[in-house]
Amino acid sequence: MNGYAPPIRRLIEELSRFPGIGEKTATRLATFIIRGSREDAQRLAESIVDVKRKIHLCSVCFHLSEGDVCPICADSSRDRGTVCVVEEPDALIAIEESQSYRGTYHVLHGALAPLDGVGPEQLRLQELLDRIVRGGVREVILATNPNVQGESTALLITKMLRQTDVTITRIAQGVPVGGELKYADRMTLGKALEFRRGM
Amino acid sequence: MNGYAPPIRRLIEELSRFPGIGEKTATRLATFIIRGSREDAQRLAESIVDVKRKIHLCSVCFHLSEGDVCPICADSSRDRGTVCVVEEPDALIAIEESQSYRGTYHVLHGALAPLDGVGPEQLRLQELLDRIVRGGVREVILATNPNVQGESTALLITKMLRQTDVTITRIAQGVPVGGELKYADRMTLGKALEFRRGM
Repeated sequence: MNGYAPPIRRLIEELSRFPGIGEKTATRLATFIIRGSREDAQRLAESIVDVKRKIHLCSVCFHLSEGDVCPICADSSRDRGTVCVVEEPDALIAIEESQSYRGTYHVLHGALAPLDGVGPEQLRLQELLDRIVRGGVREVILATNPNVQGESTALLITKMLRQTDVTITRIAQGVPVGGELKYADRMTLGKALEFRRGM
Repeated sequence: MNGYAPPIRRLIEELSRFPGIGEKTATRLATFIIRGSREDAQRLAESIVDVKRKIHLCSVCFHLSEGDVCPICADSSRDRGTVCVVEEPDALIAIEESQSYRGTYHVLHGALAPLDGVGPEQLRLQELLDRIVRGGVREVILATNPNVQGESTALLITKMLRQTDVTITRIAQGVPVGGELKYADRMTLGKALEFRRGM
């Protein structure tokens, strides 16, 4: 990389900070920027600065939002009696894209991972409890990821909310739609059998 | 992606323009920017604008350069009688890092690829010829890539320079150093045998 002029080296260094982007990929991205027009580079740079300036966390659900309250929380047609708890905004987006949910959300911004230094106080748990205590919520759907961190986070929330009279549910686990049983892993098949339903 | 606020969507769109970066990866990169500090975002944005403002092509060899002439062409200790022709700046950097070359370079900025619309006029060929005709160059080393595009580009340059009295050479092909013969492909083994040298 030392053969490149300082501004290129600096850009490669900045791009290498991205998770999963090594020096080779960063060099490829830098080359693309150098090849592109000055307007393209300007637009990219502006969108980076812009996102940091304009995006905040929704004061109700902690989703990424341009305003103080996100469009979902501000939408009076959404059922505010149901709150779906997710780890990250990307999970919220995935659920929204499935078009199968009309309630509201609560974004934890993480899941319990003691080994990575993520304890209960790093998550938006107190804010969830406050929200339930404030009233108006009938059901909390725990949609944390179906892995160790997500399950222990779901357990923690269940314990935390037991003092309230809200109904607590967990998203279903089973074989994914469209797949074939032979490709499903043992754990998933086990869950699919355990949680079988009457026809 | 439509669940994200407009500034996030715009950033994801801009990042998706990079070659090899799809919407999923762009979303991951955008999330990283949103999570990071405002200073980090500012520095990344500045380095992008900076690189376009400061980086030009060297007027002699067409390497990416901060000044009118790149440090290699400006370095009087380099042998200006030898010109190594490469397709892209990254090949030049790789040769520099090998520390096995003390001549100068000529960057074509591509290789012949008629199917992709890259003909001779898209490459810095006329500039190479002008440079040879101006005099002072004894040898041109063709270091285009050892693939179809690189080989046909090397052939074209050979024809073009035949009118001059410069010596034209091609980088050696053979088995890579440190490898094992059993892992070498047939073409490489064929070349390694064809170009065998006396001990």
